[in-house]
Parts: sequence; C-alpha cells; structure tokens
Amino acid sequence: MRGATYFFICVDLSLALFEEPAVFPLPFLATSIIEVLCLTVFFGRLIHFAKVTPQMVFWKDTKNICIMVTIALTLIDLIIYGSLEAVSIHSVRWSRALRPVFLINFPESRQIRRAFRSIRKTLPDILYVFLLFMFSVLIFSLMALKLFGDRGLKTVEGSSYFTNILEIAFELYVLVTTANSPDVMLPAYDFNWWYSLYFVTFIIINTYIFMSVFLAVVYNNYRKHLKNEIRKLVYLKRHKMIEAFNILKVKVGTEFVVKETEWRQLTKVVAPDISTSHLELLLRISDEGQKGHVDKMNFLRLADLLNIQVVTINVRRHPLEAWVPRVYQSPASLWVRKMVQHRIFVWVFDVIILINAIFIALDEKNPFISYAEWLFLSLYVIEILLKLYTYEPRAYFGRKQFWNGFDMLIIIAALVATVANATIQSARKYNSQQILDIVLILRILRLLRVIISIQRFRVIVTTLINIGPTMLMFGGLVLVVYYAFAIIGMEVFQGKVRFFEPNSTAPDSLVCGNPALKGSTFARDRYCKNNFNDLASSFIVLMELTVVNQWHILAGGFALVTHQAAKLYFILFHIVVVILIVNIFIAFILEAFFVAYSLEKSEVETAIEKKIQELGVGIQEEDMQDGKLTDNIDAKDSGFMGDNGDNKRKASKGLYFRIASKKYRTVDALLQRMFECEIAPEDEGPSLDEILNFSPRDIYLKNPNFENIA
Amino acid sequence: MRGATYFFICVDLSLALFEEPAVFPLPFLATSIIEVLCLTVFFGRLIHFAKVTPQMVFWKDTKNICIMVTIALTLIDLIIYGSLEAVSIHSVRWSRALRPVFLINFPESRQIRRAFRSIRKTLPDILYVFLLFMFSVLIFSLMALKLFGDRGLKTVEGSSYFTNILEIAFELYVLVTTANSPDVMLPAYDFNWWYSLYFVTFIIINTYIFMSVFLAVVYNNYRKHLKNEIRKLVYLKRHKMIEAFNILKVKVGTEFVVKETEWRQLTKVVAPDISTSHLELLLRISDEGQKGHVDKMNFLRLADLLNIQVVTINVRRHPLEAWVPRVYQSPASLWVRKMVQHRIFVWVFDVIILINAIFIALDEKNPFISYAEWLFLSLYVIEILLKLYTYEPRAYFGRKQFWNGFDMLIIIAALVATVANATIQSARKYNSQQILDIVLILRILRLLRVIISIQRFRVIVTTLINIGPTMLMFGGLVLVVYYAFAIIGMEVFQGKVRFFEPNSTAPDSLVCGNPALKGSTFARDRYCKNNFNDLASSFIVLMELTVVNQWHILAGGFALVTHQAAKLYFILFHIVVVILIVNIFIAFILEAFFVAYSLEKSEVETAIEKKIQELGVGIQEEDMQDGKLTDNIDAKDSGFMGDNGDNKRKASKGLYFRIASKKYRTVDALLQRMFECEIAPEDEGPSLDEILNFSPRDIYLKNPNFENIA
Repeated sequence: MRGATYFFICVDLSLALFEEPAVFPLPFLATSIIEVLCLTVFFGRLIHFAKVTPQMVFWKDTKNICIMVTIALTLIDLIIYGSLEAVSIHSVRWSRALRPVFLINFPESRQIRRAFRSIRKTLPDILYVFLLFMFSVLIFSLMALKLFGDRGLKTVEGSSYFTNILEIAFELYVLVTTANSPDVMLPAYDFNWWYSLYFVTFIIINTYIFMSVFLAVVYNNYRKHLKNEIRKLVYLKRHKMIEAFNILKVKVGTEFVVKETEWRQLTKVVAPDISTSHLELLLRISDEGQKGHVDKMNFLRLADLLNIQVVTINVRRHPLEAWVPRVYQSPASLWVRKMVQHRIFVWVFDVIILINAIFIALDEKNPFISYAEWLFLSLYVIEILLKLYTYEPRAYFGRKQFWNGFDMLIIIAALVATVANATIQSARKYNSQQILDIVLILRILRLLRVIISIQRFRVIVTTLINIGPTMLMFGGLVLVVYYAFAIIGMEVFQGKVRFFEPNSTAPDSLVCGNPALKGSTFARDRYCKNNFNDLASSFIVLMELTVVNQWHILAGGFALVTHQAAKLYFILFHIVVVILIVNIFIAFILEAFFVAYSLEKSEVETAIEKKIQELGVGIQEEDMQDGKLTDNIDAKDSGFMGDNGDNKRKASKGLYFRIASKKYRTVDALLQRMFECEIAPEDEGPSLDEILNFSPRDIYLKNPNFENIA
Repeated sequence: MRGATYFFICVDLSLALFEEPAVFPLPFLATSIIEVLCLTVFFGRLIHFAKVTPQMVFWKDTKNICIMVTIALTLIDLIIYGSLEAVSIHSVRWSRALRPVFLINFPESRQIRRAFRSIRKTLPDILYVFLLFMFSVLIFSLMALKLFGDRGLKTVEGSSYFTNILEIAFELYVLVTTANSPDVMLPAYDFNWWYSLYFVTFIIINTYIFMSVFLAVVYNNYRKHLKNEIRKLVYLKRHKMIEAFNILKVKVGTEFVVKETEWRQLTKVVAPDISTSHLELLLRISDEGQKGHVDKMNFLRLADLLNIQVVTINVRRHPLEAWVPRVYQSPASLWVRKMVQHRIFVWVFDVIILINAIFIALDEKNPFISYAEWLFLSLYVIEILLKLYTYEPRAYFGRKQFWNGFDMLIIIAALVATVANATIQSARKYNSQQILDIVLILRILRLLRVIISIQRFRVIVTTLINIGPTMLMFGGLVLVVYYAFAIIGMEVFQGKVRFFEPNSTAPDSLVCGNPALKGSTFARDRYCKNNFNDLASSFIVLMELTVVNQWHILAGGFALVTHQAAKLYFILFHIVVVILIVNIFIAFILEAFFVAYSLEKSEVETAIEKKIQELGVGIQEEDMQDGKLTDNIDAKDSGFMGDNGDNKRKASKGLYFRIASKKYRTVDALLQRMFECEIAPEDEGPSLDEILNFSPRDIYLKNPNFENIA
C-alpha cells in the first residue's frame, strides 16, 4: 500500500518529463490519462484514511484537506487546459507546480513535513532581519546613485554605470551573494581609489554580517523547534509509562511497585525479539536489590533501557577450522594468518593503491599500463581471499563492518565491469563508452580504500555516513522546491533560449537562437544549454542558481529574452533556496558534528554499562578497536546466541555484552539523546493536553526573549 | 607609554606606504632611519619589561622572545638590503612581512593573540579534514581526467579542457569555492547531459558538505577554547576570593564568617566608586538574616555582585521648569509636550523621512528639490528642539540613550556639511567634490532614523552594536594576515600588471601593460587596477580574494605574468583567510546571537532583583520600555544621586534601582556569563597550579573524544 502510493507519486512527478516541454514527448491525452489515474489512486487512499480514522480527526488534519484541494484544482486545470487545447488555444498548466503537495502531505513524508514546518515557523524571525537587510541595501543603493550616478562612468560592457535605482539595487543584491564581485566595483575603483571603501563597507555589512545573522536566525530556530518536538516526544513517552505503571502497580510495604513476573511479561510483549540474557541484564539493572519487584523510578526507565542497543558478542571459529582443522592449524596456515593480521599487510596494500593511482593518472594507451591494471585487480582479489581465509566470513561481513563490505563491493564491481568491457572489446573490437566510463569510475573509487586504513579519516567519513539518511531528507526538500520552480520556469522561459551543437551553422547559434541576447554576457559565455526547455535542463539551471556564482548572468540573460521583471523569479529562488534551505542544511551539519564531538554517555547507559561490568560479561571498547579481536567476533544487536547449537562454545568462551552507544541509526535519534538530557528524570511533565500543544516559546518562557534584549 | 607603543607600531606598519613600491615614495635612507627608530623604541620597551618582571618570567614568555628575534632579523635584513642597494643589486626586503609580529606580541593585543592561539590549536583538527578534502578533490580530478581528458573538448576561450591533472585539480579547487561555477561544467554538459551529474556530486560533497564540516570544526574548537579560558578565569576568581575569606574570617558559633565592618571596608577598597545606597543593597543581599556578618557562600559571591550593573534611577525636572515654571506649565506648553510625547509625532516624522528618501532619489538638478532639502533639514532641527523642550536634556542624551545621540549627531553633521557646502558654492560658484560626497552620505544616513522607530529593527541593530568591539578584534586579525600577504605579494608581483587611465593611448593599455595577458580573462574584464603595485592596491586585491568570487581570474592573471606556481600564493591565502578566519568570524557571530537569544538571568542577578523588589525600590522593565518614563529619567550606573542638592526630590519621588542585566560591554563578558552557569557555585575548583595548566581536553575528559566515535 505504502509502496504503491510512493510509486504513483513518482509517476505523477515524473509526468513533467513527458509533457510539453518534454524530454521524451508524449501526447497530451496520454499524460492526462496517467495523471487522472494517479489522482484516482490518491483519492482512493484518502477515502481509505477517512474510513480508518475518526471523522473529527480526519477533517481536522490539514494534510487531508491539502490533498483534496490539490486533487480538485488539478482536475479543474486539466479540464480547462484540455478544452482550450481542443480549440487550439494554448494556456498554462499551472496546477503542475502543485504536484509536490502529494509528496509532502502523505503520512510517509513526516521528515520533509517537519522541515517545512520548521521553515514556516522561522519565517517571522527571518522576515525582520530580511527587511532590515533590504533597507540597508536600499540605503546603499541611494548612496551609490548619488555618488556614482552623475560621473558618466561606463562598465566593461560599455553600458552606463549605476544610473538607475532599481538596477543599482539589483546589482547590490547580487554583490551580497558575491556573484559580481569585483566587477561591479571596478568602474568606480578605476575612477578613484577611495570609492573602493564604499564597496568594502557594503560587503562587510551585508555579505558578512547580515548573511551570518541569517544563518544564526535560521540555525537558532531550527534547534528550537527540534528541541520542542523532542520534548513533546519525551513527555509523551513518560506519560504513557506512568499510565502503564498505574495499571500494573501493586503495593509492597509503603510504596507501589511492579512485580518481577509482570515486568517480564510486559517486556516480552513490547520487545518480543529480546534475548533471555538481555532481559536478565535489564532486570538486574531495574531491580537493583534483587527484591523481586521494580519501583516506579526504574519502571519508567524501561523504554530508555530497551532503546539502548546492547550488542551480544560471540566469538566464533572459522568454518575451515571446523572442516579441515589439521590444514587450518598447520604452521604454514598459521604463518599466513599471522601475516594477514599484521599491520604491514595493510601498509603494503596502501602502497599498492598509491602506485595504482599513479598508473591510473598515466596514459592508458600504453599496453604495459593496461596489463598493469589486470595485475592490480588480481592483487586486490588475492587480498580479499586472504582476508576471508584468516577471518570468520560472517564476522568479516557483519552488520557493523561497513568498510569491509564497501571494499569487497567496489572490487567485485570493478572486476565484473573490467571483465565485461574486455569481453565486449575482444568480441566487437570496440569500447562501449558507458561501460568504459563505469569501469573508470570504479577503478578510481577503489582508491578510497586508503581512507579505511587511516583511523582519523575513517572517523570523519563515518560521521558523514551516519548523518546520511537525514541528508536524504534534504534531498526531498530540495526536490519539492526545485520541482515547483522548474515548472514555473518552464512555463515562463520555455523555448526562449535554445542550444545548438558547437559546430552548428544556424544563423543564431552564437546568440542561443534569440537575437535579444546579442552582445550579452549570457551569450558570450555560451550559457545556451542553461535553459528551461525541459525538466532535466531546468534542474541543472536551478542547481547552478543554488551554487549562486554567475546567477546574475543567468538572471540577466532570461530577463533580456522576456522582461526585466523575470529577475524577480531568480531573486525569489535565491531567498528560498540559498537563504533558507542551504542555511538549514548548514545548521543541520553543524549540529550533527557538535553532537558527535560532545556526546556524553547518558545516565541510563552508564547504569547498563556498570551492571555489565559488575556481572563480568563486559568487553572493553579498547579491545574492540584492536583489529584481531574485532575481526574474529560477530556483533549482533541484542541477539541471543544460545539457540544455534553453539552452547558448548558459549560455555567455554562466555557471552560478551557491549553497548553500541556511539552508533545511532539516524541523527534524529542522536539529537533526541542530546536534548533528553535537559529534562530531569524525575520530571513527569505536564498533562497530556499541554504536551500536545507545546510551542517553542514555552521552553524559553522564563528567559528574556529577543525583543527585550535592548 | 602604551599610547606611544601603539603610535610606533602604527608608524612601523605604515612604512610600507612609503617604501618601494610606494603610494608616497620616500628614499630608502628615510624609511630605514624611521624603522630603526621604531625598533629602538620597541627594544626600549622590552628592556623596561625585563626590569619590572622577574627574570624567570620574562625569559619564559614567548612574546618577548618573538619580539627580540624579530628586531634582530629586521636589523640584519636592513643591513643586507642597504649594502646590496649601495652596490646597486636589488634584493628582497623580506623582514617587512614580520612587522605584524610587533602588533600581536605587545601585551595590549591580548584579544588578537587569543584569536591566533585559538587558530593554532584548531589546526590539527582542521588538518585531517583538509587532507581528506584534498584527497577527495584529487580523486575527482583523476576521474575528470579519465572521463573528459580524451574527448577533445574545448573551453569557451578555446583552450583544451581537462587534460592536465594539475590544472584539473586547480579548477576543481576553484569549483569548491564556487568561483568558476557553472563555466567549468559547460563544455562537458554541452557534450552530454549525464556528465553534469559528475559536477553535481562534486559540488554536494566538496562545496556543501566539506565546507560545512570546516565551519563545524572551526566553530567547535573556537567554543572549546573560549570555554577553557573562561573556566580558568572563573576558578582563578574563586581561588582569590577564598584566600581573601581565609584572611578576614572570624569564628561565630560553629562557622567561619566575615564581620559586617570588615565586609564594608573591603567593598569600599575594591570598589571605591560605589554609592552608599548600592553598598547597603549588596549588604542586605549578602547578609540575608541581618545577623551582622556574612557567611562564606555569600562572601564568595561578592565579586559577582559587584560585576552586576545596578542602575540607580533618578526622576529629574526639566531645567526650564525650574527657571520659568509659569511658562513651562502653561496650557500651550503642556499641549506641545503632550503632542511631542504622542506616538503620532514619531509617525509623522517617519513619513517625513520616507518622503525625504523619495526626494533624494529624484533628480537633484531641479531647484525645487534642492530647496526641499533645506525644508527637510529645518524640519529635523525643529524636531530635535521640540524634543529637548519636552524631555530633560541630560536624561535625553544619557549614557544609555545611544539612539538619541546618534540621531542628533547625524542631523547636526548634515546641517554643518550642507551649510559649509552652500557657503563654498555661493562664494566660489563651484561644488567641492569631497564635501558634496560627505553631504550626500550624511543626508542618506539620516534615513537610518526609521530604524529607531521600529522596535524589532532596533533590537537587531543593538545586538550588532553590542558585538562591535569584538568585531574590531577581527579587524586586527585580518590586518595582520593582510599585511603579511600584501608584503609578499608586492615583492612577487610588483610592476607586473599596470593600470592605465581609461582613455590612455599607451600600446599595452588593454593588456595591463603586459603582453603575457593578451587574450586572458584578466585583461578582458579590465582587472588592471587589481595589482600589487602599492600597499593600498594590494589590500583591495586581498579583499577581493577574501570575497572569493573571480579569485581564479586574479590568480590566473598573476600566474600568466609570473609563473604557474604563483597560484599557490592565492590558494594559501584562500585557506588561511576564507577557511580559517572567515569561518571563525561566522562562528563568533553565531555564538553571539545564540547568547543574545537564549540568555537566562544568572542566580546572582535573580537574588539582587528579588531584594530590590523586596525593598520596594524596583522599577519595572515594562515601565522602562514606555517612552514617557524612559525619557524623563536619568540612568546612571551605580551612581548616587543624594549629593547634588536633589535631596528634596529624592525624598518625595524615591530612588529607584534597576538591573542593567541585559547589557554587556563586550561579547566576552556575555560569553563568560554563559559558560559560568556550567560551573556549580559550590565548586571551589582545583588548585592554582592545575588551573593555570588547564587544557580544553580536561573539560571533555569523561566524554568520548572524536577518535572514539566510530
């Protein structure tokens, strides 16, 4: 059901590829039928929702209203456009810009919705800074008009310099983004050195200070709203735990407690996969004095205890040791295994990778070098085989051994691609361009293995990979904004700028097929392929606008072929994407890194760890870092090893626990941990109604708010 | 003494203006005599230091060693250069790049030194991220070479595209700074749409993620080191307070306390300016039960109590009321005063300012508009006179009324400048350009008054003004780095690029006097004035490099006229200034704004405020916000009003206290307050030796450090 919805959302969004202006044109009838089909599916899903949720809740939810309104609007637009098309009047398919609404408003896109909510709540704060910033730009524009307007200065292109207040304001806005620095300053600077001070002042105030203030405001709000949502979650959790306690409690002595049997039953129900040993561990922590019951304080911690990943570690034997013990334990075999485990083995292969890099950089035409490539490939394969011989395979590719898997994957892929390419080459005597490109990229990606050997690099990359899932959320956010802007851009600018192949003989090929661009920087720099003639090109233009540089040339070019007001489209895009979304992205990366830098173990984790140590089943973090031990153990999250016939080994070697405390599946979980510390464990929180209506202001209620600082 | 040192440092630094290549050339003999004089002064100061400090301390201090070595090196350089010059061999005055050492290492530049120390300590952490980043750029360069190198593509300028690995690496480094986006992508993109994905991936990984990681690392370290220094300060303060307590303590009952008389004496000694009323207030807070003595806990708070600005507020009469009470209290006068205090009065003048803005934007040639300017000026003067009539003048321009003073200053300056200009104009029938420019700027700055009327704007601007002093510290930091780079740049690039007046007929004027630049983008964009031919020009070039945009064109141009290796100078500048200093600046603005957003009142402040309320001498913050009250009171920091003959008024109206809690003179004080909260008040801290040898690592001792995250 969920997969189907996503599929139809994808279909609906990708319709833009087939509609005029299209990458792969399809007749209007075909695309409209597909669109109606998608809308039917969305409507059907909505009806299903309406059935399973109470009517009040359903109609109160803005999500559902949004989807219904969008479906209705899309249908109206389809009918109007279709009937006008039938009498050959071309109109605008404006409802296409609304399509991302489906992506946002289905319950599965909680993350994207939260990001949008955070942006919406940040807007009032941003607005005042933005107004002040615009005021500053206008004041500077006035000054520029007065200082430079009557001087008769000329720009490099020969047009008059700083004579029109609107043009000045645009140029100065562009200067804030640094895109036209230093060109915009040069005519005044050439005239008199002192005028450069005007621009220096402008840049310090607007580019450096105001842009940092934007980042500060966005960042602060992002953190504030995140904190609020997490506080809500934590209080809700406590609330439910208290309810559960009140149901299960019995009076023992003077206090209410939960009996051990009830506690066991409950834990088995909420975490059916928990291993018996893990359960015993938690019980020992919750029932400190082994009195046979759990008190309220410890009962409320249950959810937190269950959330902590306790890794059960089992030391396994290599399968070869079981099958051919005599060969595997022979002196030669032992020597090989010792060699592979040695640090020098890693270093040797690092050197090989570096030599390989030099060979790749050298000219490939030389047959000797192309043979060397086969040599390197076989060396890598030998390395992997040796490692598999030495380490237990299931442990080596265990869930927590990301880098080993990555290594293996890249080498196998490179091997397959190289072999495939060689086969095609020998069979058809010609290099397949696509496969060759892939082989080249894989061959170079192999060099990434060097990172694995250097601990410091590995750490940075691991942090980046940890925040990967949430970065994908930003991908969704950007997609939504890009899609809407791309549709608008296609309606406005489609066909105004055309791309001709470099050696085209068309008369207008040098001015992108539009004489209005004659003499413009847009045409001079050959920006013709940066156009809105289909969805794919539009996305690339929007990406270039996000990177900011030269955006004024793009804006200027499209303003020339349509109207000066078109610049507003580009300014709006800059405000939405660069000032809002990119700043949120930076704020997110900063926050994630700070958390990674300063995370302390939580109280609950410390309790678990202490108990593990007390029971003597702990395994030291330091031992884990050591290659030999890590490679021989199989880390399984809260799994229970006892039921797979290994009982004998378990008895002899013991079962080890370790807290996987520093690994979080998402940054959200990480952030939750950070803000959770700020709520005292005794704090039972306000009533349920209050919790659901939290606003970020409540957190800072006692603090002076921003208006009172001055 | 201090002033003299600063003066000679300034003289020494500004010597670069007069030495070859000079803005105002002076013979080598003159500049070298002045330099020797400066060095003598610095050496004299050093000897003075050596006399007043113990020998051990003096020689252990790296500052002094630094200065001595620099003086010696400069002298050696002067002698070598002078003797070579005497036999007409031109050599390099390399020691000039060392001059900022004097600025950094004199004890008065504590702030700049702290910033440099923070940068130095951040370097190891930055280094690993930087290496990983360079590794990523190199991997991408290899890919680009393989993907695009053999395609025979051409750039817009017609040169070959992505064929040399070093050039590719430079181009990709430039792409990270976004300066050559999208141009660098276009040849590949024109060839095939799919190749744009390579650049999109590159930009996401390197420009967005890595640059944010740099910011995160710099920011995190900045905060860590700041926290450490402040922890040191707080513990030192506590340590000294405990010593003082141990000297003064007497035993009363079971505990040691300080008698009230000793406490009074001590406070009078450490804060001689304190008013009797303020002293009584503090005593009432410290001696809660009025037992005649102060216990240890309260005694230790004394320094904090004294640090809090308690504002004594006195309601004064207008001087006119004293001189001509009958006129001032007449119905007409009352009506005028009521009118001026009314909100509409402010609005009317806001509208006048806006109309004025429109008039300024219009053409000034029209005589009607130039008369209107006189009208506006007189309106503003009338406004100020009315305000002075209504509000007590000393209160109106009181120390806490920054905006009123700003307002007054701008209008008086504009008035003076306009009158001066009109006089010159009528006398000589010609507009003095300089004065006219100043008049224009002042006239436009007057529009800033609109900000004053809008509370939200005022708040943002006040926060920015509050962090102003520390921003000046960044000015010093930037000056030091700029100076060193400018000297090196002048030695290397001086005279290679020359600027010709726009209508010059010199044959090489279009290629900046250097045929090597023929056909380059540098010459095409007329960057000739961006050269290193004197200190002023060099600073502007470095400023442009800091803004980043088009820096590759500058780097490319200077590489053409010298050698490709010259690009290293520009890359180094980018790393030092943009990656390090600008990021620290952003981190600083972020931190300052967060503090402003989230500051809570400290425990000590709350205690004072409670006592003020208890004693019934408090004045509510809300009343203060109200215009009428604010304008009639004179806020004086911990001053005592009783001694200026106002005793009668004081008796009738009373004396009011208010905590100026939300105003800090510097952000450092603000930050200190923030981190102070993290140290419990009971914590007496470690021993003195330990305190002095704190390292940031100690704070995070219990936490997992970065290496252990993975």
